[in-house]
Amino acid sequence: MKRNYKKSDFPVSKIRKFLEPGPVALISSHYKGKSNIMTQAWHTVLEFNPSLIGCMITASNHSFDMIRKSGECVINIPTVDLIDEIIGIGNSSGQRMDKFRKFGLTPEPAQIVKAPIIKECYANYECKIADASLLDNYNFFIFEVVRAQAATYPKYPRTVHYRGEGVFMVSGKELALPQKFKKKNL
Amino acid sequence: MKRNYKKSDFPVSKIRKFLEPGPVALISSHYKGKSNIMTQAWHTVLEFNPSLIGCMITASNHSFDMIRKSGECVINIPTVDLIDEIIGIGNSSGQRMDKFRKFGLTPEPAQIVKAPIIKECYANYECKIADASLLDNYNFFIFEVVRAQAATYPKYPRTVHYRGEGVFMVSGKELALPQKFKKKNL
Repeated sequence: MKRNYKKSDFPVSKIRKFLEPGPVALISSHYKGKSNIMTQAWHTVLEFNPSLIGCMITASNHSFDMIRKSGECVINIPTVDLIDEIIGIGNSSGQRMDKFRKFGLTPEPAQIVKAPIIKECYANYECKIADASLLDNYNFFIFEVVRAQAATYPKYPRTVHYRGEGVFMVSGKELALPQKFKKKNL
Repeated sequence: MKRNYKKSDFPVSKIRKFLEPGPVALISSHYKGKSNIMTQAWHTVLEFNPSLIGCMITASNHSFDMIRKSGECVINIPTVDLIDEIIGIGNSSGQRMDKFRKFGLTPEPAQIVKAPIIKECYANYECKIADASLLDNYNFFIFEVVRAQAATYPKYPRTVHYRGEGVFMVSGKELALPQKFKKKNL
């Protein structure tokens, strides 16, 4: 059953908290009156401030052009309750369907970008393209996160992490060891 | 207690299996007769064939220069038994110590690169720099994995995934759902 998360604003400089562990993301986009969603897992944090994320998106994806042309997207972090939607969205193309309707997901207006937020996801990172110069060679977008929100409960999401060949790892327990870190490295 | 993994060669086109889920890595390097290790988590798979990985490494790290100048490194995937070493290596600089000795890790010769493999890690990906053009603007290395090996048991590693502020997520159970995928997407 889909979760109904209550969310609040989250500092863009701290978005690593839910992205750096490496979950599968759902990226939503909007261009010329149409919205789309893709399943995406080849991403990395690149910088805290400005808050930068790098994402490799294969150019043959319908979302690639929508994001490039609109200059925007939302990186949504789904949890394991959405596993069927994650796989189904990855299996299909937005050229032929409205994925929000097909997969029963709710598009909510974002604050800064025109791409919709996926309500059922644990966190939503509104992004603008910061650097498009790596698209030709690597299909690699560099996004700046311009606004973020995350669920207030539970403290950490149960995300899914893809291994290929149809196998996901589901995120496990947290291990809090701040006392072992040098303060400057926290 | 440190694990003693028995390993075998692993196809470089399939290295996503242990990297795409987003674990903290230990990157080993070798330059001018000295070896070093750093803790690293800002990485992403970029391509299957050639097998490309993107890694953001802050330029102030001692390893940054060693990797750039030698053109090589090994991306080692540690498991949760090495949590103290992962944190300790992140807390310290290789300019002032031999981290293999300090942290009781075993350097083993790699097959193709001069950087040593960390024996105690679950998987070891030997890498050469494929593209250094993003270093000036983003400290972003694009590596080609030229040889890989991984433990033959257990089937999946219990890796650690960083959230910032001293908190790690430990990888949980696997969810195998290949029957739900379109074959071309597996």
